[in-house]
Amino acid sequence: MGRKATNFESMKIKYIKAAEELFREKGYDDISISEIARKMDMSHGAFFYYFKSKEEVMQAVIMVSLKESEKYLKALASDGSMSAKEKMQLILTITVGALKEEQPFIDFVRSPANTGLYREYLMRSREITIPPVTDIVKQGISEGSFRVEYPEETVRYLIYVFENLTDAIYPLKNDQECHRRLRALEIVVSKFLGVDEGEFTLTEQVS
Amino acid sequence: MGRKATNFESMKIKYIKAAEELFREKGYDDISISEIARKMDMSHGAFFYYFKSKEEVMQAVIMVSLKESEKYLKALASDGSMSAKEKMQLILTITVGALKEEQPFIDFVRSPANTGLYREYLMRSREITIPPVTDIVKQGISEGSFRVEYPEETVRYLIYVFENLTDAIYPLKNDQECHRRLRALEIVVSKFLGVDEGEFTLTEQVS
Repeated sequence: MGRKATNFESMKIKYIKAAEELFREKGYDDISISEIARKMDMSHGAFFYYFKSKEEVMQAVIMVSLKESEKYLKALASDGSMSAKEKMQLILTITVGALKEEQPFIDFVRSPANTGLYREYLMRSREITIPPVTDIVKQGISEGSFRVEYPEETVRYLIYVFENLTDAIYPLKNDQECHRRLRALEIVVSKFLGVDEGEFTLTEQVS
Repeated sequence: MGRKATNFESMKIKYIKAAEELFREKGYDDISISEIARKMDMSHGAFFYYFKSKEEVMQAVIMVSLKESEKYLKALASDGSMSAKEKMQLILTITVGALKEEQPFIDFVRSPANTGLYREYLMRSREITIPPVTDIVKQGISEGSFRVEYPEETVRYLIYVFENLTDAIYPLKNDQECHRRLRALEIVVSKFLGVDEGEFTLTEQVS
């Protein structure tokens, strides 16, 4: 029984990973259950043993990716070998670099068809993100590199900016505009953390 | 025909204003069409001559209030008698002061039942807010009181913070926590605009 449950869960994870990769490549709407099944080398019918619908596998993709972010951020916050500035630059690089390929997932959670999912996702994402990033900011304060009076509150406001970043960057067709927005974001992040402008680089991330 | 259309529109506006007042007082869920009719001194049935449902009158309330914000912000931006700093303080005071009574409207646009309305509201609200606030920031730069390198982009990011402010403030039961969040916001706004801390006061607004 235990073994069976484990197999079921590990197969589910394989489906989730396969679906995630396909959604990232081609977007949510353009991927069918048959394509997920094909990638898994399984029959179309077998899919329904694990998930009720394509929506359900997408929701699972999103929840698994939130869990992975949580694990990653916790590990990063407690990593003793990196400075807070290095940690923050890494988070920024990953976040901005992923904007384009995250778009199918953001479109999905915001879609009117997914009633309530966006708020749930947002609340969960804040719960996961705020504590470790606050720890990194506190590390920066004690290292003397960040000047922030209210770390938790400041991180919360900074995260509100990042949550909406795809709205600021994604619709731009023009590289120059995109560069301006990222340049402005570099300055905003530097001001939030009380570091000199130019400490963080974001403009190299999107092309 | 012209007269009739005008009467229809002006009655509609009266319904919208009456409903708005009731929603602000008691929240959306606790107000019935009968109560709106009673406030208007009209029959229950007459309501349906103007609106299909309580949802429809609420959507109209929201759209009318966006139009009023637009008008107000445009007039404020082009007002020659106030400094940019005074204008910005006024916007902040009104925004933070209205947080509590705006809550029924924010809950409504975010509710899973109103699929799609939140994004529509958000996009429209940004369209309305960003240009006049950018003009005020540019005024502040030319007056030498604000130091902002990318006015439009900076205003955009600042607005992302304010859009989520009810999430930061409203759930707090504790006055002290609320004070910390507003104090942190004062600092964030000052940093965004490149002014000294203490130039703007928000902590007096919520009690």
